[in-house]
Amino acid sequence: MPVQTRAMSAEAAPPPKPVVILDRPQLAENIGAVARAMANFGLSELRLVSPRDGWPQDRAWASASGADWPLRDAKVFETVGDAVADLQLVYACTARPRETHLPVLTSREGAGGLRVAGAEGLRCAWLFGAERAGLETMDIALCHAIVTIPIDPKFHSLNLAQAVVVNAYEWWTSAPDLVPARLTGEAAIADGAMMMGVYEHLEGELDHAGFFFPPEKKPSMQRNLRVALGRARFTEQEARTFRGVITALVRGRGRTFARLGGDPPS
Amino acid sequence: MPVQTRAMSAEAAPPPKPVVILDRPQLAENIGAVARAMANFGLSELRLVSPRDGWPQDRAWASASGADWPLRDAKVFETVGDAVADLQLVYACTARPRETHLPVLTSREGAGGLRVAGAEGLRCAWLFGAERAGLETMDIALCHAIVTIPIDPKFHSLNLAQAVVVNAYEWWTSAPDLVPARLTGEAAIADGAMMMGVYEHLEGELDHAGFFFPPEKKPSMQRNLRVALGRARFTEQEARTFRGVITALVRGRGRTFARLGGDPPS
Repeated sequence: MPVQTRAMSAEAAPPPKPVVILDRPQLAENIGAVARAMANFGLSELRLVSPRDGWPQDRAWASASGADWPLRDAKVFETVGDAVADLQLVYACTARPRETHLPVLTSREGAGGLRVAGAEGLRCAWLFGAERAGLETMDIALCHAIVTIPIDPKFHSLNLAQAVVVNAYEWWTSAPDLVPARLTGEAAIADGAMMMGVYEHLEGELDHAGFFFPPEKKPSMQRNLRVALGRARFTEQEARTFRGVITALVRGRGRTFARLGGDPPS
Repeated sequence: MPVQTRAMSAEAAPPPKPVVILDRPQLAENIGAVARAMANFGLSELRLVSPRDGWPQDRAWASASGADWPLRDAKVFETVGDAVADLQLVYACTARPRETHLPVLTSREGAGGLRVAGAEGLRCAWLFGAERAGLETMDIALCHAIVTIPIDPKFHSLNLAQAVVVNAYEWWTSAPDLVPARLTGEAAIADGAMMMGVYEHLEGELDHAGFFFPPEKKPSMQRNLRVALGRARFTEQEARTFRGVITALVRGRGRTFARLGGDPPS
């Protein structure tokens, strides 16, 4: 996917709108209700990660009340990683606090963030978990912030479409004249696929180095590293540079050993 | 993480909360979904004006996901006039502009109005129309303002429970003390000295590896790396972990495996 930068928003094309990603949705009725919610608030791009009962399903259309286009154009992915591969800013919508060190935003703050990022031409999304299971921590680690709907702690059970309603409503009503706070200037922000390349490169080398020890801690160590680096929101150039850094550090010992007249470790 | 409103924690008797009135609701499932929506946002008092299929109905409980108390305590009235008889401020929720000369408020403005009125001890409500028919003009005339959810004019079809979600959410979040605790605030953020330790460690190793080439570019390469990593705002723990990553990459598998007594992988 070509990355669109700020220059695009100066032209006739409106800024891209956030994508709604549903991770492993169970009921087709809920997918339809999500499409209906989206359409009310000007959203149209829907992505489905491994819908339980396959796709497409008639019952989704029945519950969409005429909001057919998000369903018709919905794209299906196998993993969250695939679904976010071309996106540059993804907010995980989850009620439960997690141990990940991601910023926690209210729906309103999140909507404002997506509005600003969209104005900069970034491809953005909300990621919603399955009806009961919610989101896997490893998938949250691919996101850049957590969005939590303020809710009564005594009763905590919004359904999927209702959660989409709140966030989409906040996006729709977010002030269009927000001044974009640009952290990275004109540079293109690395998308999910590029960041996955960074993570896998780093983790592969760390694996070789025996870093993930004890082995049962590997998933959480991996997750924590991804979250910490993901927060930096690397530009494409920075992501390439960072891979160069990894390579340099790994090869460095070879050069150093060679310089010292020893054998490089294999 | 119990969230308490200022009023709740300061006084014994909280101000009255707005009532939700459904005028001639048709589907019991929708009544249950409304109860569920209410419970998420701290509301409990439900009134039903001439529910089409009578009351109570099991299907309402089935769709309330445990939000039983608004259903159990729901009061049934014959007319809107009866339902608002003891109330002091009622907002009519309707998408369509009407010819009545009532103020038209957004959901947010309406929620703010109800919040203020409640704090003054007024008995307040939203009045929602039937699924298809909406509200009669004569019933709107019993209200004090119209509340309209800002919606995409190109697709205008929120269901009843979704409309309750938006208004109840706005009411709940209009409380002054409801900003959720920042989870990232719990962890100490690395200070400048600690980050300088990270940078110098990394740059020292990159120097050894011949990464900064040509030499005259070193200052700008160094600066770019620092900016990219600095944006992540590492916690102290993450900064320590990242230094461990650098060390692991540099030492590589040779040392680690030697320490463990195994053969290095080729």
